[in-house]
Amino acid sequence: MKIAYAQMKIAAGHPDVNTKKILQLIDEARAGNADIVIFPYMAVSGQMLGGACYQESFKRDCELCTEEIIATAKNIVVVLDGTKSFEKFDVKFISEPFTFEKIFPDEKISRPVIQIGCVGIQNTGKTVYTFDGQSAVYNSRGEIVQYAGLFEESLNFVELEEIDKMPVLEVPEISETEKFYRALSYGVKEFLAQIGISKVVIGVSGGIDSAVAAALYTKVLGAENVYLVNMPSVFNSETTKNLSEQLAKNLGCKYYVVPIQESVDWTVKQLEERGIKVSSFVKENIQARDRSARILAAIAAAVGGGFTCNANKAESTVGYATLYGDEAGFLSALADLWKYQVYDLARYMNEKIYKREVIPQGIIDIVPSAELSTAQNVDEGKGDPLKYPYHDYLFRAFVEKNQTPEEILTWYASGELEKNIGCAAGLVEKYFPTAQDFIADLERWWKAFTGMGVAKRIQSPPILAVTDFPYGKKSESQNGIHFTKKYLELKNKLLVR
Amino acid sequence: MKIAYAQMKIAAGHPDVNTKKILQLIDEARAGNADIVIFPYMAVSGQMLGGACYQESFKRDCELCTEEIIATAKNIVVVLDGTKSFEKFDVKFISEPFTFEKIFPDEKISRPVIQIGCVGIQNTGKTVYTFDGQSAVYNSRGEIVQYAGLFEESLNFVELEEIDKMPVLEVPEISETEKFYRALSYGVKEFLAQIGISKVVIGVSGGIDSAVAAALYTKVLGAENVYLVNMPSVFNSETTKNLSEQLAKNLGCKYYVVPIQESVDWTVKQLEERGIKVSSFVKENIQARDRSARILAAIAAAVGGGFTCNANKAESTVGYATLYGDEAGFLSALADLWKYQVYDLARYMNEKIYKREVIPQGIIDIVPSAELSTAQNVDEGKGDPLKYPYHDYLFRAFVEKNQTPEEILTWYASGELEKNIGCAAGLVEKYFPTAQDFIADLERWWKAFTGMGVAKRIQSPPILAVTDFPYGKKSESQNGIHFTKKYLELKNKLLVR
Repeated sequence: MKIAYAQMKIAAGHPDVNTKKILQLIDEARAGNADIVIFPYMAVSGQMLGGACYQESFKRDCELCTEEIIATAKNIVVVLDGTKSFEKFDVKFISEPFTFEKIFPDEKISRPVIQIGCVGIQNTGKTVYTFDGQSAVYNSRGEIVQYAGLFEESLNFVELEEIDKMPVLEVPEISETEKFYRALSYGVKEFLAQIGISKVVIGVSGGIDSAVAAALYTKVLGAENVYLVNMPSVFNSETTKNLSEQLAKNLGCKYYVVPIQESVDWTVKQLEERGIKVSSFVKENIQARDRSARILAAIAAAVGGGFTCNANKAESTVGYATLYGDEAGFLSALADLWKYQVYDLARYMNEKIYKREVIPQGIIDIVPSAELSTAQNVDEGKGDPLKYPYHDYLFRAFVEKNQTPEEILTWYASGELEKNIGCAAGLVEKYFPTAQDFIADLERWWKAFTGMGVAKRIQSPPILAVTDFPYGKKSESQNGIHFTKKYLELKNKLLVR
Repeated sequence: MKIAYAQMKIAAGHPDVNTKKILQLIDEARAGNADIVIFPYMAVSGQMLGGACYQESFKRDCELCTEEIIATAKNIVVVLDGTKSFEKFDVKFISEPFTFEKIFPDEKISRPVIQIGCVGIQNTGKTVYTFDGQSAVYNSRGEIVQYAGLFEESLNFVELEEIDKMPVLEVPEISETEKFYRALSYGVKEFLAQIGISKVVIGVSGGIDSAVAAALYTKVLGAENVYLVNMPSVFNSETTKNLSEQLAKNLGCKYYVVPIQESVDWTVKQLEERGIKVSSFVKENIQARDRSARILAAIAAAVGGGFTCNANKAESTVGYATLYGDEAGFLSALADLWKYQVYDLARYMNEKIYKREVIPQGIIDIVPSAELSTAQNVDEGKGDPLKYPYHDYLFRAFVEKNQTPEEILTWYASGELEKNIGCAAGLVEKYFPTAQDFIADLERWWKAFTGMGVAKRIQSPPILAVTDFPYGKKSESQNGIHFTKKYLELKNKLLVR
C-alpha cells in the first residue's frame, strides 16, 4: 500500500485557495499511484480564523469545499483531519506552530506512524506564527525513516510495507540561531506575501536591531525592494551615520538620509509659541515620532510598501520605545528575540547567509544607544540604560517564567539569582554595588514592564513569534504596578541591614 | 438577621488595595450591627488580571490577603465568593460588566435573594469594561425591594425578616443614550484615574466625534484640564474652524490653533527632493499623522497628559482612520458607538447634562467629513464616503451578527435587507440605483472591514466597551479578504440579470 502525505501550505480563512491546492495534490498523489493521501490538520479552513469562525456562511463555505473534495476523491482514500487510526498504521497530526521539538524518536510507537504538519503562517492578529511542517514517517520501533524538513511544501510517498525495512534517518540538528533565522526569514516572506507588500522601508540608526532587520528583509525581498532611511537629529554621531551608510552599501539597498532636526525644532517652536513648555525628555520622544510617523510612514505610503518595527524583546518588555515612533510599523520581526539573540543573528547572517561582513563589525561592537540626547553619546561610550547581559535574563524571568520581584529579590538575598535566571556570574555585583542599587533597578523595570510597557504593547504591531512566549499571545491588562506583601517585607529587611 | 452587602469598587490586580477596603467595610458593617456582610465576586483579586494570573507570587499574595480578612472577621460572617446558598436566602453574584439587563423580576425565585455586583473598571488590555453594580434585594416572589443603583459604591443593609414585607421598588427605566452616557463618563473617569492621567488633549476638527469627546472629557475632568487643539491644513474650511472655536468657547476649555500645512509641505518636500513621488492620497494620510503623532502627542507629553482617539465604531469597522493619526490615542472612548449613537449622545449632553448648546448645532448639522482633500469640501456638502444611516446598520450586521456579503446580498435580492439589518426603508434604493452600485459598495466595505480594518484595529488604542461587541473582545486574524462560493454565485446571477 502506497501512502502519500502532503506537507502543504495552508491559507487560513481561504477554503477556496486551500481546496484548489488539495484537489491538485490529490491528482498528483493519484498520478504517483498512492492508495491514500493524508493532509494536515484543518487543511480546508486553517486554524487561526479570527472572526470567520463565528460566521455561518464561512462554515457553509467550508462544507461546500469539503463536499467538492469528497466528490473528486475517486480511486484514492483522502484523509482530512479526524481519522487517526488505520488498519496497519497511525496518523499523527501536528497542528503546532514552529517550536523546537516536534521530531524525536518515540519508543512508545509499536507500528508505523505518519506524522503530518503544514507549512505557511497563521496569525491571531497580534501574533504571527510560522508553521514549519516537519512531517515524517516513523517505523514500528519509533525511529524516523522519512522527513519532509522545515518550511517547505512537499508531497511525499512511502510504501507501508517498506517502512520497517527503510534505513533510519538522522535528522540534522541545527543551532538555535539557524532555527530563528529560518523561521524569521520564512515568516517575513509569507507575511509580506499575505498582506500584499513587496517593498519595505526601514529606519536605520547605525544600531544592531535595525541592521539585522535590514539584512533580513534584504535577503527576503532583494535589495531593490528595501529602502533604508537614516534620520539624524543633532544627537546622532558621525559614527552611527557612517555605520548606517556602510550597511546600506554592503547590502546594496536604496539609501536616504532625511534629517529631522528642522521638523523637531518647528514642532517645539509651534508649542512654545503657544506657551507650552517642552522638556528635553519630551523632545526625545518628538524625535522618535518624527522619524516613524512623519518620515517612514510617508515614504512607505509613497512607494506602496510598509515600514518595519525593529524593537527587540527586551525593549518591548519595558516599553523602551516610543509609541507611534520606533514602536510603530506593519510587523515586529525581532520582538520575540532578546538582545543577545539579535547579536547572534547578526553574526550568523554575516558568516552563514551573506558569507561576508554585510552588517559592519562596528555596528556589532558599538554600545547600544537610542542617541536621543547627549546622555546617550556613543562616542563617549554612553548608551541605553539597559544592561542587556543582565536585563535580558531578568526580563525573561518576568515574561517567560512569570517570576516577579518577590522571587528575584529572594534569590538576590540567597545569592542564587544569576544561577536561577541564567545570566553570567558576577554581573549583579558588577552592575549593582549595593542592595539599594539592585532594588532601585529591579523596581524601575518592574514598573516599566507592568505600567507603560503594557500600554505600549497594546498598540504595538503584530509580532513574529519564534518562541512559546511572544507578546500578544496572552492577553495583558492595564492594571498598573503591584508589589506583593512578601516582596515589600523582604525589601525592608534588606534595606535596613 | 441583618445582612450587609457591599457594592464595592474593585481594583483588579491590587489585592492590597481591595483588602484594605474590605477590612474597612467589614468594620462599617459591624458598626451597623450586621450579622453577615457580602462582597462581590473575586473582590480580593479582581477578575481581569492579565499576566498576574500566571504568577505564583500573585496567588500567594491574594491568599495572604484573604487570611488577613479571615483573621479580622470576628463577630460577623464575611461572604467572599463561593457560598451561594444560606439557610434562609440565596446570594447571586453578578460578575458581568455593564450590560442592559441585570435587573428584572424573576418569577423562579422562591426565597429572598441578595444580588451583589461590583463597580469600577477592569480591562483585558484592548477592551475596558465598566462594572455598573446594580446590586439588589429580591423578595420571595422575585420582586425587587432594594436597589443600589448604577456605578456607585455603597454599603447596604437589609433585615432578612423584613424583606417580604418591604414595598416593591420600581427600578427606573433609563434610555439607551443615558445608559451610554453614564457608562462612558464613569469609564473615562475611572480609566484616567487608573493610569494616572488628569489632563487630556483632544484634536477638534469641527466634526461630531471630536465635539462629543470634548464635551464628555470636560464633564469628567473639568474645563481647566482639557486642551482642545484645532490643526487646520489648506483643506479645512472656515466653517469647521469656527465651529471648533465655538465649541471650545462653550465648554470653556483651553484652545489652541496649530496649523499643520507648513509641516506637511516640508515632509512632501523632503521626500520629493529625494525622488520619492507623493500622491494626493498619500498627502491625506500625512496630514492625519502630522496632527496626532507630531502635534497632539507632543502637547500631551508636554503637559503630562494623554491625547484621545475619537474614532467611532463605523470608522473602526472599515479602518476609515489613519494609523498613528486619528486612530492613535490613549483610549478610544467612542469606538463602541455607531455614528447615530454619537449624534444621540451629542443631543443628550446638550439637553440633559449641560442643559445648553455646548456642542454647536452647526456641528450636529454639518455633513461628516475628514476634510483631507477638496473632494471633502463641507461647504459644498461633500464629506465622508460613508452613508451612516445605511452603513451603521450594514456594519452592525458584519460585526455584531457575524453576517457576511452572502447574507446581505441574499436579502438584497429578496427585498428583505432593510428590515433584516434594521435601517430605514428606502435607503438602499436611494443610495444604490442598480445592483452593480449596491455590490460595489458592499465589496468595498467588506474588503475594508476584513483587510486594512483588521490591521488598523490590531494597533488601535484600548476601547471603552458599552455593548457586548466591542472591538478587541474577540481576537481577529489578519487573513485577508474572502468571499464565499454562494456569494459569488449570487453576485453573478444578479449582475447578469
